[in-house]
Amino acid sequence: MLTLRPPPLGETKRSVLADVYIALVHHPVYDKQQNIVTTSITNIDIHDIARSALTYGVRRYFVVNPVRSLHALAEKILDHWQVGHGSTYNKTRKDALSIVTLAYTLEGVHQIIEQHTGKTPYVVATSAKWGKTDRVTFGSLRARLRVSDRPILLLLGTGWGLTEAILERADATLEPIEGKGTYNHLSVRAAAAIMLDRLLGSAA
Amino acid sequence: MLTLRPPPLGETKRSVLADVYIALVHHPVYDKQQNIVTTSITNIDIHDIARSALTYGVRRYFVVNPVRSLHALAEKILDHWQVGHGSTYNKTRKDALSIVTLAYTLEGVHQIIEQHTGKTPYVVATSAKWGKTDRVTFGSLRARLRVSDRPILLLLGTGWGLTEAILERADATLEPIEGKGTYNHLSVRAAAAIMLDRLLGSAA
Repeated sequence: MLTLRPPPLGETKRSVLADVYIALVHHPVYDKQQNIVTTSITNIDIHDIARSALTYGVRRYFVVNPVRSLHALAEKILDHWQVGHGSTYNKTRKDALSIVTLAYTLEGVHQIIEQHTGKTPYVVATSAKWGKTDRVTFGSLRARLRVSDRPILLLLGTGWGLTEAILERADATLEPIEGKGTYNHLSVRAAAAIMLDRLLGSAA
Repeated sequence: MLTLRPPPLGETKRSVLADVYIALVHHPVYDKQQNIVTTSITNIDIHDIARSALTYGVRRYFVVNPVRSLHALAEKILDHWQVGHGSTYNKTRKDALSIVTLAYTLEGVHQIIEQHTGKTPYVVATSAKWGKTDRVTFGSLRARLRVSDRPILLLLGTGWGLTEAILERADATLEPIEGKGTYNHLSVRAAAAIMLDRLLGSAA
């Protein structure tokens, strides 16, 4: 079951890079005790990550959650900024949220990308930790974006992160973002912003 | 008038870089119509930017707001995570918030940094736009961090950004973060994360 929003924005500048999609995954993810849970959709995750995604030319930002009532909540937020009062009050929010698509499952996300592009996405999971599966560097994924003609789907976890099963099923897992010391507990909003800047920014 | 929190964390790994401080400025900033206003302190700005700041070894994160009742609100949030239930529920939040200092004015921030370091900070404003004053590149500020023995204070604006007066008074203003197209409306939380990664991250 998919809630479809309009197809990719015409305004998003098409570059020579592969098409990049991101998905914020609310299930299956770990909680603090490593139980597999479903997290709630939050207003701030929708807004912040949509604004970062549109800034860096991401084609679609999928909010993936299996819970029907949370879709209703998310629809309400999206409608407020897209057709309600918010759409005239703040046009930049309207633009950002126009790239958001709600989905119930990751399989549903894959299907939409295949419908849009005619190709299966190369799926890249993210994790704040080193782990069992190999990690690809930001540099090598950045290079891949320049040569690949397959769309790339970046998966971001909520809660305490994507499950091992998701990492194993992905085509690759990106190296963790590390700062200067031993502390690396970035919010998913900050991690998404840094990841997009490293992969798609002009500076690096 | 300053609300002092404990001095810089021992755990923050001291590097060969200059000491970096950041300040989130709630006044004076512009609103949508370019009026000069005071914005509200938000829970999410405190949390997200503290987590990013600690990850990148920032010495102190100042939340600057002239309104006494908003300080009381911020104190309540900080206390919850530092001494209340939150401190045992989520230690990583406690650690992040331990680098937050509330201040009423930017002058107060300068004083604290001088007390800590014995030196006046080199003040760098940020803006999402090109403008009247010159902009320094991320590359040149990154290079300065490696040679300067003066502490660096990075100013982040809330609302519709720092006023021209703040930019003119600063020692420098950083170039805007630009993505791939014409849209650049990052949240201040995302902009802070990207800025810290570009200036202090190991990747660049």
